Amino acid sequence: MTSTPEPLVFRPDRDEPKPIVILGSTGSIGRQALEVAKARPDLLRVVGLAAHSNTELFAQQIEEWRPEVAALWDESAAQQVRQSVSGSPKVLGGADGVEAVATWPQSTLVLGAMLGAAGLGPTMAAIRAGKDIAIANKETLVAAGQIVTEAAKEHGVALLPVDSEHSAIAQCLRGEEQRTVTRLTITASGGPFVDTSRSELETVGPERALKHPTWAMGRKITIDSATLMNKVLESIEAHWLFEVPMEQIDVLVHRQSIVHSLVTFCDNSVKAQLGVPDMRLPIQWALLHPERVSGSPPPLDLFSMGPLSFEKPDIERFPALNFGNQVMQTGGTAPCAMNAANEVAVEAFLAGRTGFYGIIDCIEAVLERHENVKRPALDDIAAADAQARRLANEWLDKHPII
Amino acid sequence: MTSTPEPLVFRPDRDEPKPIVILGSTGSIGRQALEVAKARPDLLRVVGLAAHSNTELFAQQIEEWRPEVAALWDESAAQQVRQSVSGSPKVLGGADGVEAVATWPQSTLVLGAMLGAAGLGPTMAAIRAGKDIAIANKETLVAAGQIVTEAAKEHGVALLPVDSEHSAIAQCLRGEEQRTVTRLTITASGGPFVDTSRSELETVGPERALKHPTWAMGRKITIDSATLMNKVLESIEAHWLFEVPMEQIDVLVHRQSIVHSLVTFCDNSVKAQLGVPDMRLPIQWALLHPERVSGSPPPLDLFSMGPLSFEKPDIERFPALNFGNQVMQTGGTAPCAMNAANEVAVEAFLAGRTGFYGIIDCIEAVLERHENVKRPALDDIAAADAQARRLANEWLDKHPII
Repeated sequence: MTSTPEPLVFRPDRDEPKPIVILGSTGSIGRQALEVAKARPDLLRVVGLAAHSNTELFAQQIEEWRPEVAALWDESAAQQVRQSVSGSPKVLGGADGVEAVATWPQSTLVLGAMLGAAGLGPTMAAIRAGKDIAIANKETLVAAGQIVTEAAKEHGVALLPVDSEHSAIAQCLRGEEQRTVTRLTITASGGPFVDTSRSELETVGPERALKHPTWAMGRKITIDSATLMNKVLESIEAHWLFEVPMEQIDVLVHRQSIVHSLVTFCDNSVKAQLGVPDMRLPIQWALLHPERVSGSPPPLDLFSMGPLSFEKPDIERFPALNFGNQVMQTGGTAPCAMNAANEVAVEAFLAGRTGFYGIIDCIEAVLERHENVKRPALDDIAAADAQARRLANEWLDKHPII
Repeated sequence: MTSTPEPLVFRPDRDEPKPIVILGSTGSIGRQALEVAKARPDLLRVVGLAAHSNTELFAQQIEEWRPEVAALWDESAAQQVRQSVSGSPKVLGGADGVEAVATWPQSTLVLGAMLGAAGLGPTMAAIRAGKDIAIANKETLVAAGQIVTEAAKEHGVALLPVDSEHSAIAQCLRGEEQRTVTRLTITASGGPFVDTSRSELETVGPERALKHPTWAMGRKITIDSATLMNKVLESIEAHWLFEVPMEQIDVLVHRQSIVHSLVTFCDNSVKAQLGVPDMRLPIQWALLHPERVSGSPPPLDLFSMGPLSFEKPDIERFPALNFGNQVMQTGGTAPCAMNAANEVAVEAFLAGRTGFYGIIDCIEAVLERHENVKRPALDDIAAADAQARRLANEWLDKHPII
């Protein structure tokens, strides 16, 4: 009883593949997005690429994809690639270069997969240029959720989630009325330390934290997944994307990473989206929205997936979970400060400069000292981000690992 | 983090509650439908009731609900209620009476919850009268799927599933394109005998078969759930309701009855609907479609639901599962004959006239002897049903339990 349906080509009203831009093409999400595009050249055409500073991989991508426009955030890296790659496109450099890619007139959708707070500027530029956004950079929504979602509404563009959890929620919400939603339940694998005791966690280093049980991801997000900070960022992201109050967003530990999230409705019906833990599924979903097609995402065998477990997360061992409601109750620039402090603290943890709970203590210290701006503009966000980074580094200097 | 949303009142374009008719009001589904209606009198108004022959309960229902029209299938039972209940409505009797309820001009939706093959006539009458159908009588679709679905299309009425499995599938399909569906996976609790050996099953009687682990249901459906014949009927029903080929419909044993069914799409994304095993949820969903509202369905606690297991069903112990593809490949009146034979055999099993595998053997024998009509009209369905019942009784007489 197997059936492999023919590849389905949708939207008979468009004969041309959708022209897309990828911001962050050398990162984990960017590379998988190129795989997705490669599997369906009839449906997707990559017209622009941008990345931070990975010259070698970016040069390869330019050679392979020959997009219409390309840029590296790092000026000197851009210059290096310009010299090594012959022919078009000319690789642009700096924030202006990345913005040129983000707003490239020929694209209709921009995948925002730049790491951390760096994604905000190009994402806002793309929204103002009327591009639909496939949003893989959760920090953008965490730091500036209100600004980004308001701009998206103003410019009539879709914000399409790429995170597997938010993709699951969006898929469950399809065809449903938003006002009938009573709860979003974001699943968490639990990370590498789901069974590690608090006393042991006090001494773990980056090597063990980087061993994620179910997902192969970038370093930053893998550490966030170990502290469960990831789920805090995702809860805030879900709040902005789906307009559901924070207190109606839960985190549920589900070790197998098969159920990617759940939505509860007012009639107590619950819908869930399942799939193998493979980012190509949510990436393809966002890039081709509203089309579902066969492509690179691998199948889930329901008969052999085994039992699925669900547990309440342990707030004692993973106190990061408290930050979500805390910063959203404060509002303003507090989520931005939390996010910036977390980025600095995770870097410090990876460098052996602080311990596992040092990340939490650092964020806590920054939030205590952060000067909150209630209804921030983009400039206030940038200032809050910079202030929080400075405060985080100060705290880390004063609290060296022993 | 709990939130009890205010009852949501939908469809602002209607101020009046939806006028509905319940066929089979004294049965398990009918009684629960009345509970659903009772919880939301602002949204549902019961204008007609019909049942088979349960005079005492039907009289109570008439007293309580005072519908505009009422009927009992059994003439003498109808007469009895007419004498015991004073005031309107006058309780009609016989097939004509039930048809008058099914086609009552003031209703817009008919819940078809008559037991077994008796549901076909009234359901067809309601479709022809332009009523949306909440379909709880799966035998109607099994016996006459093509006729019923074609009539529904012709008269522009919706066929809304009430079975929890089909409700789950319909909910997962909401907002999705039918052509993107690659697989329907119907879950089965496994019934009371999920762990019983084949040799033990050869000797079980009705008492043990009636003890269902997760669902409280009528006697006929509980035995169907013990043989897994229920899943065969549901697969065929799903085929007709969702226009998915039989070979793309699977049965998956899921003991907890929390996941009510799953849909796989061409991008290998899987959607599932979950809820406590309580028929009030799918009943309310069908009666109020396309509205979701708070009401009588109880909540599912995701944090305490425990692990969910999934297994391939054992075809050796539950050979009924083979009938689905067999009768659908034959087509014509074969599914009707299978259904009729099953009804007779289940009655015989409940009466101690045959054993557990006698049900299977009886169906097999009937299918061997059944004279198939390839493209049946309603008369052919009725004839096939009668012939199969006769053949089943003949077989049962020749194979008494020892």
